Amino acid sequence: MNEITMKLHADRLIRMALEEDISSEDVSTNAVMPGARQGEVDLICKQDGILAGMDVFARVFELLDERTVTRSECRDGDFVRAGQKLAVVRGDIRVLLSGERVALNYLQRMSGIATCTHELVQLLEGTGITLLDTRKTTPNCRIFEKYAVRVGGGSNHRYNLSDGVLLKDNHIGAAGGVAEAVRMAKEYAPFVRKIEVEVETAEQAAEAAAAGADIIMLDNMTDDQMRAAIRLIDGRAATECSGNVTGENIARLADIGIDYVSSGALTHSAPILDLSMKNLHAL
Amino acid sequence: MNEITMKLHADRLIRMALEEDISSEDVSTNAVMPGARQGEVDLICKQDGILAGMDVFARVFELLDERTVTRSECRDGDFVRAGQKLAVVRGDIRVLLSGERVALNYLQRMSGIATCTHELVQLLEGTGITLLDTRKTTPNCRIFEKYAVRVGGGSNHRYNLSDGVLLKDNHIGAAGGVAEAVRMAKEYAPFVRKIEVEVETAEQAAEAAAAGADIIMLDNMTDDQMRAAIRLIDGRAATECSGNVTGENIARLADIGIDYVSSGALTHSAPILDLSMKNLHAL
Amino acid sequence: MNEITMKLHADRLIRMALEEDISSEDVSTNAVMPGARQGEVDLICKQDGILAGMDVFARVFELLDERTVTRSECRDGDFVRAGQKLAVVRGDIRVLLSGERVALNYLQRMSGIATCTHELVQLLEGTGITLLDTRKTTPNCRIFEKYAVRVGGGSNHRYNLSDGVLLKDNHIGAAGGVAEAVRMAKEYAPFVRKIEVEVETAEQAAEAAAAGADIIMLDNMTDDQMRAAIRLIDGRAATECSGNVTGENIARLADIGIDYVSSGALTHSAPILDLSMKNLHAL
Amino acid sequence: MNEITMKLHADRLIRMALEEDISSEDVSTNAVMPGARQGEVDLICKQDGILAGMDVFARVFELLDERTVTRSECRDGDFVRAGQKLAVVRGDIRVLLSGERVALNYLQRMSGIATCTHELVQLLEGTGITLLDTRKTTPNCRIFEKYAVRVGGGSNHRYNLSDGVLLKDNHIGAAGGVAEAVRMAKEYAPFVRKIEVEVETAEQAAEAAAAGADIIMLDNMTDDQMRAAIRLIDGRAATECSGNVTGENIARLADIGIDYVSSGALTHSAPILDLSMKNLHAL
Amino acid sequence: MNEITMKLHADRLIRMALEEDISSEDVSTNAVMPGARQGEVDLICKQDGILAGMDVFARVFELLDERTVTRSECRDGDFVRAGQKLAVVRGDIRVLLSGERVALNYLQRMSGIATCTHELVQLLEGTGITLLDTRKTTPNCRIFEKYAVRVGGGSNHRYNLSDGVLLKDNHIGAAGGVAEAVRMAKEYAPFVRKIEVEVETAEQAAEAAAAGADIIMLDNMTDDQMRAAIRLIDGRAATECSGNVTGENIARLADIGIDYVSSGALTHSAPILDLSMKNLHAL
Amino acid sequence: MNEITMKLHADRLIRMALEEDISSEDVSTNAVMPGARQGEVDLICKQDGILAGMDVFARVFELLDERTVTRSECRDGDFVRAGQKLAVVRGDIRVLLSGERVALNYLQRMSGIATCTHELVQLLEGTGITLLDTRKTTPNCRIFEKYAVRVGGGSNHRYNLSDGVLLKDNHIGAAGGVAEAVRMAKEYAPFVRKIEVEVETAEQAAEAAAAGADIIMLDNMTDDQMRAAIRLIDGRAATECSGNVTGENIARLADIGIDYVSSGALTHSAPILDLSMKNLHAL
Repeated sequence: MNEITMKLHADRLIRMALEEDISSEDVSTNAVMPGARQGEVDLICKQDGILAGMDVFARVFELLDERTVTRSECRDGDFVRAGQKLAVVRGDIRVLLSGERVALNYLQRMSGIATCTHELVQLLEGTGITLLDTRKTTPNCRIFEKYAVRVGGGSNHRYNLSDGVLLKDNHIGAAGGVAEAVRMAKEYAPFVRKIEVEVETAEQAAEAAAAGADIIMLDNMTDDQMRAAIRLIDGRAATECSGNVTGENIARLADIGIDYVSSGALTHSAPILDLSMKNLHAL
Repeated sequence: MNEITMKLHADRLIRMALEEDISSEDVSTNAVMPGARQGEVDLICKQDGILAGMDVFARVFELLDERTVTRSECRDGDFVRAGQKLAVVRGDIRVLLSGERVALNYLQRMSGIATCTHELVQLLEGTGITLLDTRKTTPNCRIFEKYAVRVGGGSNHRYNLSDGVLLKDNHIGAAGGVAEAVRMAKEYAPFVRKIEVEVETAEQAAEAAAAGADIIMLDNMTDDQMRAAIRLIDGRAATECSGNVTGENIARLADIGIDYVSSGALTHSAPILDLSMKNLHAL
Repeated sequence: MNEITMKLHADRLIRMALEEDISSEDVSTNAVMPGARQGEVDLICKQDGILAGMDVFARVFELLDERTVTRSECRDGDFVRAGQKLAVVRGDIRVLLSGERVALNYLQRMSGIATCTHELVQLLEGTGITLLDTRKTTPNCRIFEKYAVRVGGGSNHRYNLSDGVLLKDNHIGAAGGVAEAVRMAKEYAPFVRKIEVEVETAEQAAEAAAAGADIIMLDNMTDDQMRAAIRLIDGRAATECSGNVTGENIARLADIGIDYVSSGALTHSAPILDLSMKNLHAL
Repeated sequence: MNEITMKLHADRLIRMALEEDISSEDVSTNAVMPGARQGEVDLICKQDGILAGMDVFARVFELLDERTVTRSECRDGDFVRAGQKLAVVRGDIRVLLSGERVALNYLQRMSGIATCTHELVQLLEGTGITLLDTRKTTPNCRIFEKYAVRVGGGSNHRYNLSDGVLLKDNHIGAAGGVAEAVRMAKEYAPFVRKIEVEVETAEQAAEAAAAGADIIMLDNMTDDQMRAAIRLIDGRAATECSGNVTGENIARLADIGIDYVSSGALTHSAPILDLSMKNLHAL
Repeated sequence: MNEITMKLHADRLIRMALEEDISSEDVSTNAVMPGARQGEVDLICKQDGILAGMDVFARVFELLDERTVTRSECRDGDFVRAGQKLAVVRGDIRVLLSGERVALNYLQRMSGIATCTHELVQLLEGTGITLLDTRKTTPNCRIFEKYAVRVGGGSNHRYNLSDGVLLKDNHIGAAGGVAEAVRMAKEYAPFVRKIEVEVETAEQAAEAAAAGADIIMLDNMTDDQMRAAIRLIDGRAATECSGNVTGENIARLADIGIDYVSSGALTHSAPILDLSMKNLHAL
Repeated sequence: MNEITMKLHADRLIRMALEEDISSEDVSTNAVMPGARQGEVDLICKQDGILAGMDVFARVFELLDERTVTRSECRDGDFVRAGQKLAVVRGDIRVLLSGERVALNYLQRMSGIATCTHELVQLLEGTGITLLDTRKTTPNCRIFEKYAVRVGGGSNHRYNLSDGVLLKDNHIGAAGGVAEAVRMAKEYAPFVRKIEVEVETAEQAAEAAAAGADIIMLDNMTDDQMRAAIRLIDGRAATECSGNVTGENIARLADIGIDYVSSGALTHSAPILDLSMKNLHAL
């Protein structure tokens, strides 16, 4: 994860997560360890998958004590295997114990998302279709989750409501039609934004393309409708299809000529990748 | 969710989640709707499950505009069915559009956790075993996720490192033995805390019980070891077993005499419950 | 200003500005007015210009006391004249006195920017060129200043470094060339972003257009260079020229065929529009 | 700028300004530079003026990466000339690129204020009149702007409503007269505050002096009125006159015997001093 | 307490105090009261003293639920007697229970300070000496404690290091003498500040007065030294003496001609005034 | 104080306390010392007592300048004597001057609490009774004050409403009886919490013990009532008595068989321990 983003945005969230887990003090640790003692602990992989979030993992311990050092034996994006040692964390044992849960909570979630993304990306390989995430992220975790999608080989859709234009049926209704909605968006939005329009019929798709939409999302269409839409768009705009990507429908989507597929499940329902910290010992 | 907790803790997190999704403004909505317009939108269930988080859902819109009104047709803990209308939200259409994603992100996640918890609780029915959550929650979402576990019928383990004592092998090692660790914890921790000790053998369990531990967590033991441990504990402490609860092992655990079973998956890997907002219309 | 943006972003900044001006209490007012007293005060224009920021002005007083009411007699974007009464604020006189300076500091600055923008927009009238702002805004005032530019008739360039791609010479150097930089940006940046490239020669402009840049900024070129660049771009990308817009050079730029002109002075050097509050009286 | 003030107050504002400009990440830079690379960039002056804010400029980069080093070749208060190299910043090129705009936004504004202040101070030279700023500062920039006034040779009036007493007509009206207002302020305000009173006639000035006001502000008076007021005050209080200082009226004010002149334009309407960063190169 | 100060400063501190006491939820109350229930509770005085902080007390409950109403039967500054009913709080019983401790913690401490201040003020009655507080307040409680001193009849010394000048021996040493220190302070500090100097000998006092100090603090002097100092100051500056005020030394100080006496004990060592909430009942 | 607690919780409060005392800058120090100068100052004890808070004291200066070094000559818990030198602080003299007051405000208060606690603990010596604190702490100082109680030899009761269950008469009334309240709390509260019940009669005590309460607080009972209660509890629960501990009643309480005594005065009314900083000198 980029160091500037870490400093400006991730640090604040990580610190809040630590405060959430330590609202006054770590009673168990402080009861038995009144003072500092140097130690080491291993980060162990318990399940095959793609690693994502090593910098965030390491940062958790550094925010508790800047002298804590994490020696990683692999990097974000690596395929890791059950049983593999991923890193060694060295520092005050109290810090290792008090930070363990938050560090793992981030790393497991991010790696789970990267792993899940990677699986879909592999399905899409060779099709020319790009896999996108959505805004269906966990509240206050978007910066971590969108990064994990990239680590897993996916691409990011807009970051939030402020940095991308997506005109849905309600926007179109309010504007009084597709063409008018696109015109209003072009006038209002910073000119560096592309304009994406969500359509439900091939005719709407044609209207959007004519109005100058840069991207057209084909919402909930049958294969035939999508085919018709793409024919009418005729290369004037990129096309996105949202929905379940499975081994079977991939071939069909590629055949239809879709450019992008987006999946909310990448971030809202990916199970974690199981990791744990083992073999804590004093030095 | 309790109104005071909402005010003191949830509000701040919800507001941050809104800022995450709207870092300057909702460009799409503002482009086509320069002014306020009253409207209504339905919250629709797309999958069977247990609902959790209706107050949080409603609060998202209220934080954008305190005049927004959510009329719920069901309550947290209700079993909801695909196709069912769960609520109607009425207010400025721009608020309905701008708040939709954050509101659903919370409600879907919380309902997913409640649904997953409920399934396990049903498996445990009649066994006398209580289902517990863990600290394996999403960073900065604990207050929502632990609540969702309760809605689903589970019970909460300690909230964080500050409000519960759990002495693990490293604590015991640092103290120089189970008895000494328990003694140090009783001396240090506020006296309203119970002392829980994690043990790996039946002998350790006996030692912990003798030392006055209130709860003994049997970590990674075989059935025989657990049976031996419970015999040696002899009612002097409650027992907790962490691990995968399945239809098959439940019977065994109940037979062994375990009091509590904890599951991290409730909060770290529950898929969301699919919900959506439909039928937005002006009034 | 959109109410949601006001709530999520402006409120926090306004409250900080109030804390900056009232670090403990308004000593003068509290010394002579121990209790609440209803009153009214007029907002008077002292200089011709374009008004921008009435909602922000009113919000300052509401954040001190939500019962304060501002009755505006004109709206953002109106041309106002010296001597004109713009609004009446009614509420606790202590609130009117304590909030006056912060309210005026915002309104005067925003109106100054709108006025300055409007003057340039008028110069551009009929040329087909769009006037853009820049990121040369006052720290922690961007949300107000970019809004004021729109009120004055200008358009917004990207909001910040996160929501727009602009590849400058250093980015191009790091990537190893224009084509490679554009390719890397298209791969990395969320696909809803347009790619803007800053070039210094007509050849670079041609290279950028060929590489698929959406917008090309012609930096510091002579008229002839710009003409050559636009010929080589040949409609494949929009063109932006940054720099001083004066009555004289406008005609030339329009003739050359530039699409956008950006001006940092709109936000970094616009003098305020002089306004004041007069005629405070008890009710 | 004093290091403690920087740490306690400026840091927070600078960090917010960075978050304003980088709401998630610097997309352009991160797209083409995935890792750290050491480099240097020059700070160049493009316009003659007085420099103010070098510590703030340097701090912006340090807050992104504490290893960034700024070697200044001049100091706050120096007269700098167009074309002059003012400093060299060395560090991770990504930090140099991502921090550039915020660093310049502060430095240009502060230097603009210092330059504008310096011009007026020169006009006042030899008159014995002290130039003061006002509370007409940019919201959330006061600490920077008041400092810049001092760098330019001006003096600071009260910092805010909490640390200085200035009784205006409304305060006097509420108290029931000048004498009563002064008495109430002396009783209420911490005794380390001087009491300043704004008056509109020579008679009021006399009344204020008799009541023990420490400073008397002559508001909007003719020369004759000011002369009469100063005669009646007779050295019992210092005098301040607010308003436009020009080469021509300076001589008159000095002749009348005014002690202080305050100017809002120093902070609300000073154009920036043009500076830029050039010659970025890898090391 | 002034409503604006409450909103801008006290609210934030009160909310933090509530978060300190309710880090996730009020477990006891929520266990037995799942829903809202209206009730009332009395605020009872258990010790004679001066009441201070009724608005803060009421605000605690309002911040938990804005519908909570406190009907006060007495006001800040009133002398209250053991057994007296001071107020009735009406609202959701859960709010009354959860807010009780924080509300009392503020009110008891503030009333304790007002009571302690009032006792000293009575000792000083008729002497012409004004009682001052100091900066020896509880961290993050100054706004409440300085207010309580005023309620008890005392006056406030400077609020903090930013709004008052007090030159101590180290400042004088750094400047190179009393005269030089005063000169530097007059040049540097906003001109609305008085200059106070702390001296240890009568000669220093004379020097300070000659240099134009507005207030001279006689530090740790014998009666004879103070008398000599006051003679040498000769009315050119006000005098402050810090130290223990007792029935016996008051007469002496008054006789010596001291203007101000400051006492740190008012805020750092005043015992609380005992109050409690009784008779909670449902409505 | 534990370093993690310091980082996560104390730092934020200390920084706020510094901002409270330095709302813009230390005018006096900055007036006479424009630049850094190394110096040293001694921390001197002026009154016998128990020291508590040395880490907090040192941290205040480090937060102003991380290079400041405090060399302690004694540790928390030490008995210190009037006249004793406790520590030497070395760093930029401006930091030593600007941080002095906040550093002492914390250290004096914490040491006062430790001293007061120590006195009571000595009275209890040999009785087997444990001394507890309460939630009657200064708002936003609990983390410091509860720590100081431990340094003084006392034990901590629950930290706040979230981490301990204490069922009072109102909770019991709402639940419909002691047994039902205990049952509801056991069901609702995390199972690691002990359940404490406050009772007013021996019969209620018996009922609470039978219901499974872990701790029973005997509220406001006569000696005979307490004796009867303890007889009826019969070892099934620990007992706590709140109230004034004096040399005389200690013997009685010990004789009655009470396990815990809690005292609010430890934190709400302990006078400070007098300390000061002397002998500042340049190096």
